[in-house]
Amino acid sequence: MSTFHVELKKVVDDSYDIEVGFELEQKLIQDIQNGLVGNIRKFAVITDSTVKDLYAARILRRLTEEGYQAELFVFQAGETQKTRKTKEEIEDAMLEKGFRRDCCIIAVGGGVVTDLAGFVAGTFGRGVPFINYATTLLSAADASVGGKTAVDTPLATNLIGLFNQPEKVYLDIATWNTLPRRQISSGLAETIKHACLASRVFFDYLDAHMEDIFANDRQACEYIAEENCRIKYKVVMKDEREAGLREILNLGHTVGRAIETVSDYRLLHGEAVSIGLVAQIRLAQKLGYVDEDAVQALISLLRKAELPVSIPDYIDRDALVKKLYTDKKVRDGRLRFVVQKQIGEVVEFEPGVFATPIEESVAREIIEAI
Amino acid sequence: MSTFHVELKKVVDDSYDIEVGFELEQKLIQDIQNGLVGNIRKFAVITDSTVKDLYAARILRRLTEEGYQAELFVFQAGETQKTRKTKEEIEDAMLEKGFRRDCCIIAVGGGVVTDLAGFVAGTFGRGVPFINYATTLLSAADASVGGKTAVDTPLATNLIGLFNQPEKVYLDIATWNTLPRRQISSGLAETIKHACLASRVFFDYLDAHMEDIFANDRQACEYIAEENCRIKYKVVMKDEREAGLREILNLGHTVGRAIETVSDYRLLHGEAVSIGLVAQIRLAQKLGYVDEDAVQALISLLRKAELPVSIPDYIDRDALVKKLYTDKKVRDGRLRFVVQKQIGEVVEFEPGVFATPIEESVAREIIEAI
Repeated sequence: MSTFHVELKKVVDDSYDIEVGFELEQKLIQDIQNGLVGNIRKFAVITDSTVKDLYAARILRRLTEEGYQAELFVFQAGETQKTRKTKEEIEDAMLEKGFRRDCCIIAVGGGVVTDLAGFVAGTFGRGVPFINYATTLLSAADASVGGKTAVDTPLATNLIGLFNQPEKVYLDIATWNTLPRRQISSGLAETIKHACLASRVFFDYLDAHMEDIFANDRQACEYIAEENCRIKYKVVMKDEREAGLREILNLGHTVGRAIETVSDYRLLHGEAVSIGLVAQIRLAQKLGYVDEDAVQALISLLRKAELPVSIPDYIDRDALVKKLYTDKKVRDGRLRFVVQKQIGEVVEFEPGVFATPIEESVAREIIEAI
Repeated sequence: MSTFHVELKKVVDDSYDIEVGFELEQKLIQDIQNGLVGNIRKFAVITDSTVKDLYAARILRRLTEEGYQAELFVFQAGETQKTRKTKEEIEDAMLEKGFRRDCCIIAVGGGVVTDLAGFVAGTFGRGVPFINYATTLLSAADASVGGKTAVDTPLATNLIGLFNQPEKVYLDIATWNTLPRRQISSGLAETIKHACLASRVFFDYLDAHMEDIFANDRQACEYIAEENCRIKYKVVMKDEREAGLREILNLGHTVGRAIETVSDYRLLHGEAVSIGLVAQIRLAQKLGYVDEDAVQALISLLRKAELPVSIPDYIDRDALVKKLYTDKKVRDGRLRFVVQKQIGEVVEFEPGVFATPIEESVAREIIEAI
């Protein structure tokens, strides 16, 4: 018997920039011309059926005009399409069009597109570079920092995927107001979550400027895009592999993700998270970490953002409780929750531990009350 | 417009050990008890229908006896099963059995199992640790160093996957001689490839000890297992992302992988590589890098290993030439080959460049001659 040691210690630099601004297509093209992805001249632009005509086709045309080889890969819009099947179809289409390892993927769209395209990039030819061109507030809040990519499966959301960092992220605020109002609301849920867990000042800003955001006011939108990046970055930087601190980004998501699935995606992700935020703050209140004023402040802000604050009647409560157990935070078969401590902070239960085991009966009680 | 910089520079330590020896199940269990994968107590043992009863069930039983939670996930043996569909079925079965992120995968089997299970591990819950328990010479030669995991698609082999390093690799030599003789031969092709590209001494050793290897002689088998690791490690260490040097491991694989697919997997991987090795040395001879003696020495060694040295009649040559273009080394639509320089070295065409563009007509000429 002998042992052979494989030494694989190295410095990895996954650093990248997030560009925040209005109409960033030209900037994207310039960056590519200036060597953002080295000598690569072949681009797979991945988008969904909604974003295709709005932005993706434009980016594709600009790339082609500048002499790059570029192809569009379009899937049907919607969270239900974030599946292994869609990933497979895109891969096969890329292979069919002759794409191999010498290409770069550009994801143009919201969180579903960036999640899926980032995952495709991570495993295509064992990894090709990718760029996120985010066209929704939700992706600005959720998909720009952290490197999480994934698809959903019938049994759980976001459980198949990988950590994969983009070469660059573009948050094009000009794209936000082309969304239906319901989608804008949905996107605001992650922003409100960030305020809840990290900044009372940001929370108050949102409360005071909700109408400006809906009106796509440039200053307000740039501010919230940057603030989202800043908060998420602070958390993720300290804990890239989601060991402890990063779990706080799951605030509202234990119940949120379960509702989203049980609703069969009738609820948008942000709508489900909104209800999840109410669930966790009620739990926090029960555990003695927040007072009724804080609960009401959160509910009021969610309402201003035109988000739901209670569980729709059509949701089967039993199915919902059962679904909670598919959460990634579940350990040794026990539910674990992140909860906030007043507005702008989360509870650190032990040093470095931000999720606490909760009895099923307690979770059920909360769910039945909201 | 503003830019937000995400700083993500860090030291990553993916180092691990390869244990070479006879009957290593007990060592595996001990290592786990000694904290090889930290506090994890939940194991998914992934294997195929051939290896299941031979080794995997035994490892599962030992884990259970020691108080660990362990489940077996079995797929049908064979390269044709190394697909996204099989990956999906294993994932769903794991989710169904309640596996989440707090688990470790143990791959028990040959290259197909370790490739597939390593890929499952890389994307399950965005990455869980995995251990390779390799039961064939081929996986000893091919799947123990390098971190390559992948599945095949209808259009290309090994193009969907990722680089993922195991926690530890076990090369159990006692398992080798339970293989059918044809499988042992197939496994020898990668070993011979290593000798061709890196060591005349090793080449001569193989030539002198072929019968010992077929007889599962312990000393000979341990020596070749270690030598395989050493050669592959030297190459991979210098070039983890396969930028240049690592391409030399593709020696014989340009034609080899294409034949494997065009044969519809009637040829085993190693058999196809054997033919590919002959193709590249004939090409090397045409380019003036090897003499006829070296060609004959290689052909003679491959024959001793009971491997094919010419393309079977049933292979459609046109389909084969077309298939060459799905090779990962293709760049700007041109075929690229790695070729050897006598025995024990490869040609470095320019500093750091080990693959050279080859005209389709030249590739076709070589293929038609062997």
